[in-house]
Amino acid sequence: MKTISFDHVDLTGGYLFEKQELNRKITINAVYDRFYETGRMTAFDFAWKEGDPQKPHFFWDSDVAKWMEGVAYILRKHDAPDLEQKVDALVEKIQQHQGEDGYFNIYFTVVEPDARFTNRDRHELYCAGHLIEAAVAYAETTGKTQFLSCMEKYADYIYRVFVEEQSTAFQTPGHEEIELALVRLYRHTGKKKYLDLAAYFINTRGTVEEQLALPYHQSHLPVREQTEVVGHAVRAMYLYIGMAYLAAETGELALTNACKVLWNDAVRYKMYVTGGLGSTPIGEAFTNRFDLPNDTAYAETCAAIGLIFFSDAMLALENDAKYADVLERALYNGMLSGLSQDGKKFFYVNPLEITLNEHFDEDRFGKRKLPITQRVEYFGCSCCPPNLNRVLPSLGKYLYGEDGDTLYINQFVSSNLKTDSITCTQVTDYPRTGSIAVTVTGAKRVALRIPGWCENFTLNKPYKMEKGYAVVENDGSEICLELVMTTHSIWADPRVVRNAGRLCFMRGPIVYCAEGVDNGVNLHRFVIPQNFSAKEVNSEEFGLPNLEISCYERLPLEDALYAHQPPKKQPAVLKLIPYNAFANRGESDMLVWFCAE
Amino acid sequence: MKTISFDHVDLTGGYLFEKQELNRKITINAVYDRFYETGRMTAFDFAWKEGDPQKPHFFWDSDVAKWMEGVAYILRKHDAPDLEQKVDALVEKIQQHQGEDGYFNIYFTVVEPDARFTNRDRHELYCAGHLIEAAVAYAETTGKTQFLSCMEKYADYIYRVFVEEQSTAFQTPGHEEIELALVRLYRHTGKKKYLDLAAYFINTRGTVEEQLALPYHQSHLPVREQTEVVGHAVRAMYLYIGMAYLAAETGELALTNACKVLWNDAVRYKMYVTGGLGSTPIGEAFTNRFDLPNDTAYAETCAAIGLIFFSDAMLALENDAKYADVLERALYNGMLSGLSQDGKKFFYVNPLEITLNEHFDEDRFGKRKLPITQRVEYFGCSCCPPNLNRVLPSLGKYLYGEDGDTLYINQFVSSNLKTDSITCTQVTDYPRTGSIAVTVTGAKRVALRIPGWCENFTLNKPYKMEKGYAVVENDGSEICLELVMTTHSIWADPRVVRNAGRLCFMRGPIVYCAEGVDNGVNLHRFVIPQNFSAKEVNSEEFGLPNLEISCYERLPLEDALYAHQPPKKQPAVLKLIPYNAFANRGESDMLVWFCAE
Repeated sequence: MKTISFDHVDLTGGYLFEKQELNRKITINAVYDRFYETGRMTAFDFAWKEGDPQKPHFFWDSDVAKWMEGVAYILRKHDAPDLEQKVDALVEKIQQHQGEDGYFNIYFTVVEPDARFTNRDRHELYCAGHLIEAAVAYAETTGKTQFLSCMEKYADYIYRVFVEEQSTAFQTPGHEEIELALVRLYRHTGKKKYLDLAAYFINTRGTVEEQLALPYHQSHLPVREQTEVVGHAVRAMYLYIGMAYLAAETGELALTNACKVLWNDAVRYKMYVTGGLGSTPIGEAFTNRFDLPNDTAYAETCAAIGLIFFSDAMLALENDAKYADVLERALYNGMLSGLSQDGKKFFYVNPLEITLNEHFDEDRFGKRKLPITQRVEYFGCSCCPPNLNRVLPSLGKYLYGEDGDTLYINQFVSSNLKTDSITCTQVTDYPRTGSIAVTVTGAKRVALRIPGWCENFTLNKPYKMEKGYAVVENDGSEICLELVMTTHSIWADPRVVRNAGRLCFMRGPIVYCAEGVDNGVNLHRFVIPQNFSAKEVNSEEFGLPNLEISCYERLPLEDALYAHQPPKKQPAVLKLIPYNAFANRGESDMLVWFCAE
Repeated sequence: MKTISFDHVDLTGGYLFEKQELNRKITINAVYDRFYETGRMTAFDFAWKEGDPQKPHFFWDSDVAKWMEGVAYILRKHDAPDLEQKVDALVEKIQQHQGEDGYFNIYFTVVEPDARFTNRDRHELYCAGHLIEAAVAYAETTGKTQFLSCMEKYADYIYRVFVEEQSTAFQTPGHEEIELALVRLYRHTGKKKYLDLAAYFINTRGTVEEQLALPYHQSHLPVREQTEVVGHAVRAMYLYIGMAYLAAETGELALTNACKVLWNDAVRYKMYVTGGLGSTPIGEAFTNRFDLPNDTAYAETCAAIGLIFFSDAMLALENDAKYADVLERALYNGMLSGLSQDGKKFFYVNPLEITLNEHFDEDRFGKRKLPITQRVEYFGCSCCPPNLNRVLPSLGKYLYGEDGDTLYINQFVSSNLKTDSITCTQVTDYPRTGSIAVTVTGAKRVALRIPGWCENFTLNKPYKMEKGYAVVENDGSEICLELVMTTHSIWADPRVVRNAGRLCFMRGPIVYCAEGVDNGVNLHRFVIPQNFSAKEVNSEEFGLPNLEISCYERLPLEDALYAHQPPKKQPAVLKLIPYNAFANRGESDMLVWFCAE
């Protein structure tokens, strides 16, 4: 299906709309301020010299580029002259300091000017990719072409040195991103050279002998032969997105199939229930199938965002609701957990368990690699915050798709859609409720996603199911879909050893967790019976119902560490909040997977 | 009670006797050979110079000293001229190279001759302590006094520089050991100076301002104010043993009470079910109460040995069977797991879980701190193997104690006891069976430990219970104790988060585990119902019954990683072997704590 651009979509209310507004009013400025304070913005003056403070880092260009892209998306729907002026000023500096030849990179101009394209691991093409994405977005929004021209010139330079002259010390980027960016550049400009360059990087990957030992950056095999997601999770996602974009342009079956196999491997074997990806902080990487530790999870916010982009790209290759299901899972849980309720603080790593008793000081001998327990305003490696900046204002792009005369409704958000041929009004308070009312003109059929989490639904029209969509013949009258939204228990494949004998709770697409602040320490003491009952508690606090689960708690042993009898149990109520809202009320234990009786 | 020296006790058969014989015939020589190959023995020539291979390490003296002590214990019961000759040769070299002033340390003579007693963390007094222990043992066995004289001279020197001159750069050892050794030297020689020196080190600990930030080596508080076991587990144990020995000599209540509080803290809050101690490899240390991870357990073999010594020392302070219970737990499980079935290979770290799927290669970014999965013949830091060398031949010392006219039977091993006043014949195949027959002369009362694990027992005499002992008036006729030895499930305090909803199996004092080699991968899939049945399988392989548990196994999900329904279960048989025998049949998954239904 063809995703419908968010140009044509206005969110009109509800949970995601509120998150979008939070980003527009708070987060976009908070990220700017932190970036300014840390020298990322002034780095564009190219004035740094040895001995100065705030030495530019080789990934700084990308941080700012993502923020600029985020501004572009905000400007699509809102006047924001202050933000626009900031971007324009940056663009001015970019043009000013871009090389005659088209090259643009702060670090490799002011810090290591002689090392251009010599070190595959220094994010040079990754920065280029993010600048290209930002330039395309800014041109699409504002019609201003200065930034885009700069980046076309840069892309031309990259084409020359990588493809024509082959004068660089490496052939493909250590951190993927430029591939997908070049496809976007091609889509916007129509210049096939950029698609060719994307294809060059994708097709060359895994064919360079000295890089074959590097699953860390997915260089171990030609991409069409890769069947398992490996290595650094964000790099992996960005590569697969590029592959899927390229496949959408070329229609190549082998590449499409590789994307399907890789998406399936991630989702079937290596994805946290939150949509988080990356099981270890060591290399920020995928590990083995079914290895999904909760307390040492990495599950980087950017990896969840990558999974959103990848799933969206797959939906363009195959009209299957499973992609929109996973997108929803990652969006509501693994991504939104990266942002604090006040919109100013961030998680890079999103664990599924915090047991503070295990976060002890370890004297002189280092620390265990446990995630931080409180969101912070700034990370030295600050990729996640501006990634949120660009996803939130562009949420509208994930709602609708079209294929022939069918309108696909992929995500449920109150919104108005208007294209040249189609209009759609969607009214819902999803995911607070499961009631969705849709009125469509200009499409013969309306395909409504029936989420994978939904066991029962009603629809006021005849329908037939097609790959997870309920397809209705459209007569222009209101289509009412009711997704029965109960709290259900979720079980992992028993090969996930850390979830053995455990269950977690979801209500609709929302994964829940318990926190110590509501339940006391040692959340592992709770035992959930098969016949638990769940009560929804409408709290304003986190914008979604909280839950109360009737269950048991195991009581401490009285006088020994080990006993012949099971610990005594007593009835208890387990208080749950949305997982994405954990760690907003101080440092606290947190748990997603609970002992099942 | 007064422990009865193993001089008076001959083991006559059974499981522990076989382990003792394994050490005498295999392990003692295997350790010598590895030490010889690695330069530890030739280091006693004091010939190493810069540029030579096999540079002496600052803890090598202690490795060899423990081996020598082990030989001394073997010689107590057996002629072993080859071993005796090796010790004599070493003693000759010790005398030859000891300083005029009495100082003896290889490293600080040949490697850093100017750094004597300048670096608290370099095990100088620790080495001295082990040499003293070896010298006392060797004198007790052989009557030869050359080694003892050297070490008295060394102890005199230590007294002079630490107490009289206070000329050293530190006041107390970074790694405790010398305290307990000096009490042993005092007990053998009767020279109060050595007891005073032990008391000096113990009483000074935790009073030196610049060391107060160091819980790692228990220097954070004066010892009598310490209430929690902290820091490096082996160091902690060795300190507490020294404290308990000193308290036994002085009768000091405050010190006795500190020992009780510390022993209780270890056993009530920080001890693995195997008797292993030390929850983290980072600092080889204790962590917080109830923090007992299974896969990343440290549980060093030496720490279990330390707990054996400490519990034995506590029994001398208080006639309570709980100390002998813990001694038994650590001996049969956490200590014996350190030795392979063939007697030649060792574990330093004794985890309670191996999940090979988590032992993946981690590319360029380091490894997770997971224990090795196979015993090895040699460690660079080789403290554990010679520690086994000295415990196994001296097992006889843990069997009997006397207090007034009561003979205490603390451990059950077929044996003959003969002192000037008492004889005892104990006939049992414990822990293969629970039948124990005892005939005693010369004691009015016989106190038989009723182990904490035992829920039912029969005794053919009237008895009264006193602190875990069944006390019988002795008339010289055979006392028959039957400890009903069934397989029972054991539950941890629910505050041990990693064992929440789990149980393990013990039969008598033996902790069991499952291995992948018998049960396939993913041992977490097994679910144990409350009414499980256990079958004993008499296998020759590990010298104890194996077990078969009727239970269920959860089946993999068919097509998704997460589901709304619990995984299906089917009846299964879980095959268990003694925990101490794990990893003798190749690399394999291993699990102690299983999901309970």
